[in-house]
Amino acid sequence: MSEINKKSPQKLRVVIVGAGFGGIACARELLGKPEVDVTIVDRHSYHLFSPLLYQVSTAGLPDDDIAYPVRAAVRGAHYQRGEAIDVDATGKQLVLLDGKRLAYDALVLAVGTEGNDFGIPGVAENALQMKSLAEAREIRKALLGTYEEVAAGHLTPEALHTVVIGGGPTGVELAGAVAELQRGLAREFSEIAKEAGVELVEAGPRLLPSFSEKSSSTALRDLKQLGVNVFTGVGVTKVGPQEVLLSDGRVLPAGVIIWAAGVAAPKVWSKLGETAAGNRLMVDDTLYLKDGIWVIGDASLLRDEAGRPLPQVAPVAMQGGRHVAKQILRMRDGLERERFRYKDKGQMATIGRRRAVVELPNGLKLTGTPAWLAWLLLHVAYLAGGRNRLSVVADWAWNYIAWGVGPPRTLTD
Amino acid sequence: MSEINKKSPQKLRVVIVGAGFGGIACARELLGKPEVDVTIVDRHSYHLFSPLLYQVSTAGLPDDDIAYPVRAAVRGAHYQRGEAIDVDATGKQLVLLDGKRLAYDALVLAVGTEGNDFGIPGVAENALQMKSLAEAREIRKALLGTYEEVAAGHLTPEALHTVVIGGGPTGVELAGAVAELQRGLAREFSEIAKEAGVELVEAGPRLLPSFSEKSSSTALRDLKQLGVNVFTGVGVTKVGPQEVLLSDGRVLPAGVIIWAAGVAAPKVWSKLGETAAGNRLMVDDTLYLKDGIWVIGDASLLRDEAGRPLPQVAPVAMQGGRHVAKQILRMRDGLERERFRYKDKGQMATIGRRRAVVELPNGLKLTGTPAWLAWLLLHVAYLAGGRNRLSVVADWAWNYIAWGVGPPRTLTD
Repeated sequence: MSEINKKSPQKLRVVIVGAGFGGIACARELLGKPEVDVTIVDRHSYHLFSPLLYQVSTAGLPDDDIAYPVRAAVRGAHYQRGEAIDVDATGKQLVLLDGKRLAYDALVLAVGTEGNDFGIPGVAENALQMKSLAEAREIRKALLGTYEEVAAGHLTPEALHTVVIGGGPTGVELAGAVAELQRGLAREFSEIAKEAGVELVEAGPRLLPSFSEKSSSTALRDLKQLGVNVFTGVGVTKVGPQEVLLSDGRVLPAGVIIWAAGVAAPKVWSKLGETAAGNRLMVDDTLYLKDGIWVIGDASLLRDEAGRPLPQVAPVAMQGGRHVAKQILRMRDGLERERFRYKDKGQMATIGRRRAVVELPNGLKLTGTPAWLAWLLLHVAYLAGGRNRLSVVADWAWNYIAWGVGPPRTLTD
Repeated sequence: MSEINKKSPQKLRVVIVGAGFGGIACARELLGKPEVDVTIVDRHSYHLFSPLLYQVSTAGLPDDDIAYPVRAAVRGAHYQRGEAIDVDATGKQLVLLDGKRLAYDALVLAVGTEGNDFGIPGVAENALQMKSLAEAREIRKALLGTYEEVAAGHLTPEALHTVVIGGGPTGVELAGAVAELQRGLAREFSEIAKEAGVELVEAGPRLLPSFSEKSSSTALRDLKQLGVNVFTGVGVTKVGPQEVLLSDGRVLPAGVIIWAAGVAAPKVWSKLGETAAGNRLMVDDTLYLKDGIWVIGDASLLRDEAGRPLPQVAPVAMQGGRHVAKQILRMRDGLERERFRYKDKGQMATIGRRRAVVELPNGLKLTGTPAWLAWLLLHVAYLAGGRNRLSVVADWAWNYIAWGVGPPRTLTD
């Protein structure tokens, strides 16, 4: 046989579903590696910096401060806009909603989660979720719109109450930010502003259950100082259009109801393997599922040495993405897969302006202004893109300096 | 009769329809004056800085950089969200779409204009307008979306052409900005970027007909340098979903078609009086219509000493607003109305980055970088609100510094 017929070494085709923290980290690790062809699939053309979604929801940041083009984030990778809905494991193809198929040698599912209402009646119809920019804009529109509607006499003043369901970091940050937005609107709506309020409902015994008890009580105290009414140890039994029913029989009237109590991985991937609570796919300790398929981030479940599932946070997804990138190359090179070891980065939540709780893996805990500054620096550092960083810093600086002077952003359409 | 029965002097109720440049200027002039009650009606709760709409359309600025809350812009005035649709001249009431009625002693119509297609078939169905933030976002989404669609193979490369109809300041600024956006996208879409193009169509013999011939030719040269294909002296006979038919028989294929060729005041107000071209209400030389009704800005028509209609630009609206505010107070005080004298402020249009044409009323003309700097400073100075100014300056600085390095904003949903 002549040399000319020798098949050129085929590039390894890696397809990554999801342009979140895990998917982007995985793609970046693979870029520039020889003979690797990376395609990233997402329904949105931007990487969303979801830790700041609550600030878009509460009129602190404009929406595109926290969106960064996928193509720019992973230059050298292919970007395919679309919604992945199935895997043809035999043909090794990913199937998109529009019928398109993408062949892969390795498939990385970094699909994240969506809201999970645990079957509580009325959540889907009456509560707002906060998983996408569109939903964050919807919340902002609802928060600001109720002021307009109450001012115009179309709604009763009770509509100025916002109920946030779920006392994890998202619910705590959101409740604090809503309370501060309400204070920010007090000048433009002086005749009705005193009717406004925020209720935060957590079914468990304390806020921030993944944090220490000390951090929980700090968060509780800080939220109370902002005027948030906190309900712990009480569940939600039903959500109506203008009210939330609690398990102890109390009824909380509300103009805006936000669901931050639970998430689940998209159901469509559950058929690929064994799942745990929240549709999380059980992976082996290398993050491998089977047949060239890997699952990283919130959609996967791996337990640490103590048997606890790794938390659904960005550092787990990013470390998982980089780990899987390396393992894909090892498998190609005929090497064994290595075990994934999560390096704990600690956790943090901010509560309004100038307050936060931070827990470092060495046991150090910060509260108050130092915690808030740490939170702020870390979020700016991890934002993708110089423009977004500059823009967020300028917006935060202005919000901070002009507090009580300038009006909040009030674009509602 | 006892003193106690003496009716307290009733406040003069001034209702202003429209929170544009004219309406806001009128309200501000009236605020703080004794015994005046000002209500401003608009369908949006924000004042829109419309001269920069084209930058939102072309991904240069985020949408809420150019929106400022009406309530904050005119503190002390009442703001009524709603769409005014009629006047009950007998009862002296303004009628809103939702049936609400607002009593007035003086009514100021500052309703601006909307797109006018002159009956050309297909414009309404196939061309995008750029009069509101929602429309600007629609244009941005279409411009960026065609790149995604062409990259995905859903559209042919011809869709990367944008046709702008209308060679006035709006069309010129928009065409230049689209050309620069296309250059900005060349890196992320390197495989298809060379297929992109911009066509600008003007029915009259030259661009910027209200400017001098020298400025026209400067604009033409600048646009050509940016790669814009300019067609003058040729009309549009029909607009299809993917093409524009010209009066000379040529067909321009396009993925995005933008109408910037003509505006008209909302037809609903035409019944109030005699109208000229574009539904502009003829007012007397004090800007008074009749029965306590005044019309200012783009929706009104007043001729200067040479018999030319005053141009539909922000300075005319702002000066008219302040003039009418003073006349309303004069009428209340039993004084005669004074004639409105427009103080010409000149005109300007920017063409891409670092180029502009400026014509001052003293005959001085600027081009190139000095004109662009003058344009930039004036726009920042006239923006409402410190946050918007800071944000626009930060965004422009970044756009300028990062040109060719950072990606443009590409939020499409």
